[in-house]
Amino acid sequence: MHPVITFLTDFGPDAAAAICRGVMLSIAPDAQIVDISHSVRKYAIRDGAFLLWVSLPTMPVGVHVGVVDPGVGTARRPIGIRTGRGDVLIGPDNGLLTAAAERLGGIVEARGLENPAWLLPRVSSTFHGRDIFSPMGAHIAAGGAFEAVGPPIDVATLARLPFPEPVVRDGGLDTSVVYVDSFGNLRFAGVPDDLAAAIGPLQPGRRLRVVFGAVDGSAPLVEVVPWATTFGEVPLGRPLVYEDSFGELAYADNQSNVAARLEIGVDRPVRIESA
Amino acid sequence: MHPVITFLTDFGPDAAAAICRGVMLSIAPDAQIVDISHSVRKYAIRDGAFLLWVSLPTMPVGVHVGVVDPGVGTARRPIGIRTGRGDVLIGPDNGLLTAAAERLGGIVEARGLENPAWLLPRVSSTFHGRDIFSPMGAHIAAGGAFEAVGPPIDVATLARLPFPEPVVRDGGLDTSVVYVDSFGNLRFAGVPDDLAAAIGPLQPGRRLRVVFGAVDGSAPLVEVVPWATTFGEVPLGRPLVYEDSFGELAYADNQSNVAARLEIGVDRPVRIESA
Amino acid sequence: MHPVITFLTDFGPDAAAAICRGVMLSIAPDAQIVDISHSVRKYAIRDGAFLLWVSLPTMPVGVHVGVVDPGVGTARRPIGIRTGRGDVLIGPDNGLLTAAAERLGGIVEARGLENPAWLLPRVSSTFHGRDIFSPMGAHIAAGGAFEAVGPPIDVATLARLPFPEPVVRDGGLDTSVVYVDSFGNLRFAGVPDDLAAAIGPLQPGRRLRVVFGAVDGSAPLVEVVPWATTFGEVPLGRPLVYEDSFGELAYADNQSNVAARLEIGVDRPVRIESA
Repeated sequence: MHPVITFLTDFGPDAAAAICRGVMLSIAPDAQIVDISHSVRKYAIRDGAFLLWVSLPTMPVGVHVGVVDPGVGTARRPIGIRTGRGDVLIGPDNGLLTAAAERLGGIVEARGLENPAWLLPRVSSTFHGRDIFSPMGAHIAAGGAFEAVGPPIDVATLARLPFPEPVVRDGGLDTSVVYVDSFGNLRFAGVPDDLAAAIGPLQPGRRLRVVFGAVDGSAPLVEVVPWATTFGEVPLGRPLVYEDSFGELAYADNQSNVAARLEIGVDRPVRIESA
Repeated sequence: MHPVITFLTDFGPDAAAAICRGVMLSIAPDAQIVDISHSVRKYAIRDGAFLLWVSLPTMPVGVHVGVVDPGVGTARRPIGIRTGRGDVLIGPDNGLLTAAAERLGGIVEARGLENPAWLLPRVSSTFHGRDIFSPMGAHIAAGGAFEAVGPPIDVATLARLPFPEPVVRDGGLDTSVVYVDSFGNLRFAGVPDDLAAAIGPLQPGRRLRVVFGAVDGSAPLVEVVPWATTFGEVPLGRPLVYEDSFGELAYADNQSNVAARLEIGVDRPVRIESA
Repeated sequence: MHPVITFLTDFGPDAAAAICRGVMLSIAPDAQIVDISHSVRKYAIRDGAFLLWVSLPTMPVGVHVGVVDPGVGTARRPIGIRTGRGDVLIGPDNGLLTAAAERLGGIVEARGLENPAWLLPRVSSTFHGRDIFSPMGAHIAAGGAFEAVGPPIDVATLARLPFPEPVVRDGGLDTSVVYVDSFGNLRFAGVPDDLAAAIGPLQPGRRLRVVFGAVDGSAPLVEVVPWATTFGEVPLGRPLVYEDSFGELAYADNQSNVAARLEIGVDRPVRIESA
């Protein structure tokens, strides 16, 4: 009844996201626009890809518009991706969309966004969210055929931005920080089975030695922390390693911001060993 | 026609709130989700309780999902509360919901959220917003009976988190800072009648001596300020004591941030006397 | 079918905007509320006017409620404006609404918001967003006649807050910073034709000398930068002058925050010359 358009950008709290909403609703007045986030770290394509990857599987089948697009106006292509589940993802061909699309039944088809009848009359070189992605997504949401967005693209040529993979090595797990959430919790590459493959079974309370790799010439940071099921199993402000709600390895301080305490950012190398 | 689900969390600008929206809309596609705030101070249950307390009375009757839940995954119960007005409040049993529920015609009934058919298939220990609260709220919004959420809970056993109360003492009013809003305005415990009971009638312009209690060994802060009806009655940047839009005592600088100027936070003791 | 109410405030992330949403939906349950921004710089009426000016032309015809209202409770009038396009703008008479209204087919009629049946029963002196603007906007969205909001106001008496205008002088363009967006990009007064009138044709790559005027006794800042079509035409972190997506002159660092790098704020004087 109400087609769903989800919407993620790095546009921040300005009116840019609202301008896109206005374009969408002018074309598809019945659409239900579901904001995923407009606070993606500026220009951080992989942060946006991570947020789409965690959130789109819980969204109703629909149109998903994602815009983290530092290359706007350059040669990178505006694309649409149709998935096995029946969704359409709309955005720039810079790796933002592909990982999430793979989780929605896989990528069935990709097309360039070129149909001039579905673009705004004047396409700027700095705001394709408004001029290309929003009207294209809205025309699909309003019932337009995916084939009408433009010519097919060879799926093998789509830009990919793979998430880092953990490596079992010398009785430990080499991983890294994939994302830092708004609580300051650290999402690591890999799942508990990866860690168990490196060091054996993970019982609650088992002590782990976590080494955050040196950066900028500083010494590595080492903390010895328990494997825990939930935050409340350690004292206030103390760290834990746990399986996060997406099934991934993660690191947190109970009711505090560990990213701020340790000054840890995305892509920091991490090694986990038995303590 | 469109059932209303209001939604308040401390999830911040990440995708967590959107993931919950996706769960809700997958179950109740017709629901109108009204975001109250997702910027509640992290883990600050009473801040969340305050925002529900001020906002729910203006909301249409509906389902209200609140998640400020530092104890997620521990023994604290997931609960539903039915109110005299016909609303259902959904969230953790940590005091977040009760004060607001009392303002919606009172608490009629409480139940534990245990119906496995209304939970997500896998319940994590760190994201009950997604796994328990969102699907439970959405099933109610979609027309499910409140009784179906789970077994009754004795209302007398619900966690309470009372707001501080003012005390008339020695010709003044002892109060404290209940909330600091995004303008930096300070909401005090108590209403103008409490202050008048302590010092007599409040005419506009009457001078008041406001003492912010010492903290961390520092000296108390003292300001002499007028009782005023609105901000524009004092010069730019100057303080006033006033009745805020909820009928409570409050303290502000005209077009400036008094919480930042004086470095005042929640629970700071305050005494107001005649100047 | 679903009347649109757009909504812009400087209320920030607290519950104040949600309280207004609750009032609107209680009166107009079918309304689709489209948030433009609630993060307008506190008390910055002209920032709000700018965001309405850039965003309302892309919105569907509807009701537009704007609240940046440092004079709340003083003599400034609550007003409604009807436009040639058929929109109704609702807010304080402080210049917030007029520039945007002119872009929606011009101002056809203005009225004071005085109909007591369309106000909340008790009107506070500090929260007219809740007590006056939201119920008035919702009654219009629900099908009420504009004439019913209150008595006519002479359009010539509406407060105006004009944006700065550029001046061609001595072979250069004197302009200023009208707005700083969330990327830190600077929006200048004037369009490319203004600059071309001062210095001749603007070819991509043409070198420009940009002088940010002295403030607070500091020396002026001078940068020599290219005229470019899009961000990617200059190296990462390097500045450019360009036509922004609204057709105006603008200044940015490619994938970086130039407002932070140069510590530039709104109303900073700028002069652009040939380099």
